[in-house]
Amino acid sequence: MSRVYNFSAGPAVLPESVLGRAAAELTEYQDTGQSVMEMSHRSKAYEAIIFGCEKSLRKIMSVPDNYKILFLQGGASSQFAMVPLNLMRSGKADYMITGQWAQKAFEEGSRFGTATAVASSKDKTFSYIPDVEKFDKDADYFHICSNNTIFGTRFDKLPDVGDIPIVSDMSSCILSEPIDVSKYGVIYAGAQKNMGPAGLTVVIIREDLIGNAREGTPTMFNYKTHADNQSMYNTPPTYSIYMHSLVLDWIENEMGGLEKMKEYNQKKAAILYDYLDNSAMFSATVQRPFRSLMNIPFVTGREDLDKKFIAEGVKQGFVNLGGHRSVGGMRASIYNAMPIDGVKALVEFMKEFEKSN
Amino acid sequence: MSRVYNFSAGPAVLPESVLGRAAAELTEYQDTGQSVMEMSHRSKAYEAIIFGCEKSLRKIMSVPDNYKILFLQGGASSQFAMVPLNLMRSGKADYMITGQWAQKAFEEGSRFGTATAVASSKDKTFSYIPDVEKFDKDADYFHICSNNTIFGTRFDKLPDVGDIPIVSDMSSCILSEPIDVSKYGVIYAGAQKNMGPAGLTVVIIREDLIGNAREGTPTMFNYKTHADNQSMYNTPPTYSIYMHSLVLDWIENEMGGLEKMKEYNQKKAAILYDYLDNSAMFSATVQRPFRSLMNIPFVTGREDLDKKFIAEGVKQGFVNLGGHRSVGGMRASIYNAMPIDGVKALVEFMKEFEKSN
Repeated sequence: MSRVYNFSAGPAVLPESVLGRAAAELTEYQDTGQSVMEMSHRSKAYEAIIFGCEKSLRKIMSVPDNYKILFLQGGASSQFAMVPLNLMRSGKADYMITGQWAQKAFEEGSRFGTATAVASSKDKTFSYIPDVEKFDKDADYFHICSNNTIFGTRFDKLPDVGDIPIVSDMSSCILSEPIDVSKYGVIYAGAQKNMGPAGLTVVIIREDLIGNAREGTPTMFNYKTHADNQSMYNTPPTYSIYMHSLVLDWIENEMGGLEKMKEYNQKKAAILYDYLDNSAMFSATVQRPFRSLMNIPFVTGREDLDKKFIAEGVKQGFVNLGGHRSVGGMRASIYNAMPIDGVKALVEFMKEFEKSN
Repeated sequence: MSRVYNFSAGPAVLPESVLGRAAAELTEYQDTGQSVMEMSHRSKAYEAIIFGCEKSLRKIMSVPDNYKILFLQGGASSQFAMVPLNLMRSGKADYMITGQWAQKAFEEGSRFGTATAVASSKDKTFSYIPDVEKFDKDADYFHICSNNTIFGTRFDKLPDVGDIPIVSDMSSCILSEPIDVSKYGVIYAGAQKNMGPAGLTVVIIREDLIGNAREGTPTMFNYKTHADNQSMYNTPPTYSIYMHSLVLDWIENEMGGLEKMKEYNQKKAAILYDYLDNSAMFSATVQRPFRSLMNIPFVTGREDLDKKFIAEGVKQGFVNLGGHRSVGGMRASIYNAMPIDGVKALVEFMKEFEKSN
């Protein structure tokens, strides 16, 4: 079987050239006589990889000098606890509830202090990004999830909360377009959508927010532990970081950086949204201004037809088109590495399906 | 350059056949049309990998039915906190201090209750395993580090502590020989020595020890979170688990299981120890009954000669022979995947070096 078009929400499709390079140097990396997986993380060869990776991410995202980049483990779910443990100094934080993950972050935050849900889009099945009508000027941070993977929404603009550090879960949109890092206190992301394989969590944090962890914070959950040790307090997920570095190379050298990446992503998303908006059978579920470039949910309105569509898709090499198990319907996740040909082929298949059903 | 002999303490050498198989199926795994790295962890193809891996580990280690196997992240360093957060119900635990990692586990444990160092070998630079003369019969657990990676010691027998659950950090000896899992409450190990690449942490825990985490334990640090969700509460380190499954296949099908693995490891270690005990230049640093099969530290007694030896070794394809940065000297880590030819070649090189220096 040849490669399928994989619309998985994460872990997700990786660039074919990245996989090819990884395969070619899996047994022996350059002139080291060993696999990257076998390298001591304290070796010069590996230091070149991890420090090169950090430098590359800093350049591509224009991360200011007063921000640390940390390569951690445990996924965004671990950040749901690390953020309050490290940042909730006065015991108060505001959260926007724009989907399941934002809700989980809020619930975990509530276990460590007073977390307030200042805005929610639950009333309309998380199909839009709500306005923030009031917020606590003394909150330790303001938490958002920039792109909702399950419901397919995206913040069209950052809420204006003055000097309160914005903490954002960017797992499903990081590196999809340029952002102004200086507008955030903390950015975190599980790698398994746009950065590389699962098992790596990237945190970009303003330096002044490090070093205030509360008493009783596990050493490994203290940002300072990792910031003071260049992410090598203990053995980091070495191979996942290497894969991330290959993905960064691909963004910079093959795709042309984040501005170009955004254009490409907009073009891909437009192909699918345009079809959805004109189809008599399929429709998008998210309100226009808040549509994600990465995760595009859609429905036929008939559960049996949704199922038939998903099953026929698999047969034709379109996999993971089912919606999240909590919502049903369909969802096409079209991360950076999904080629435009994959989206075009999907729309052709949808047209055929619409004709014959 | 061809493959070197890599004596790294971890991440460490992997079986060549495992790396070959990983390289061959990196871009497309079997008939899935995608890399394992790209697979949704909720897909049938990936479920076959993770559940197969668990089954295989359970079989190879003869893990009893009343134990859960968890695939986590964060390394042994995260377990240093997870163990007390989950097990220290009465607030007391005993620790044996047999090296740097045991010390770190003890220090982290002390942050969550009364941790008592009941025995230590610090008086003789951790070159032996001390006897346990007294212990607390009401302690919640008794913590050991079965094999010390840095100083090269190994427990020759388990301390007799009655019904107190023994918790063991087995990062550097797991799968090197058969053990009786039923004698332990918790076994944990970072994968990057004998199990696969860094980024996976395996926990084997008796079921009755799950579900008692203290208030305020981060959800991701609660064993119950992972036990209730078959290690898929959130996205697990999918590719590292796949690599672990390949290593398990290799142990079972190529090496013949843990009894055979032990014989092979004993044979390898004997070659090096025999030479060290008969050399006029090199000597082993660990007392005989406590010598590790995995990590073998040795010295010449002259720092300049140590350095010369390490540098000449690199030129001849023996890498990572330097001792841990905290102790100096040399250390040959000869984990499962180090071929016997590597140990033989090392000894030949040492003989040559001894002759000409």
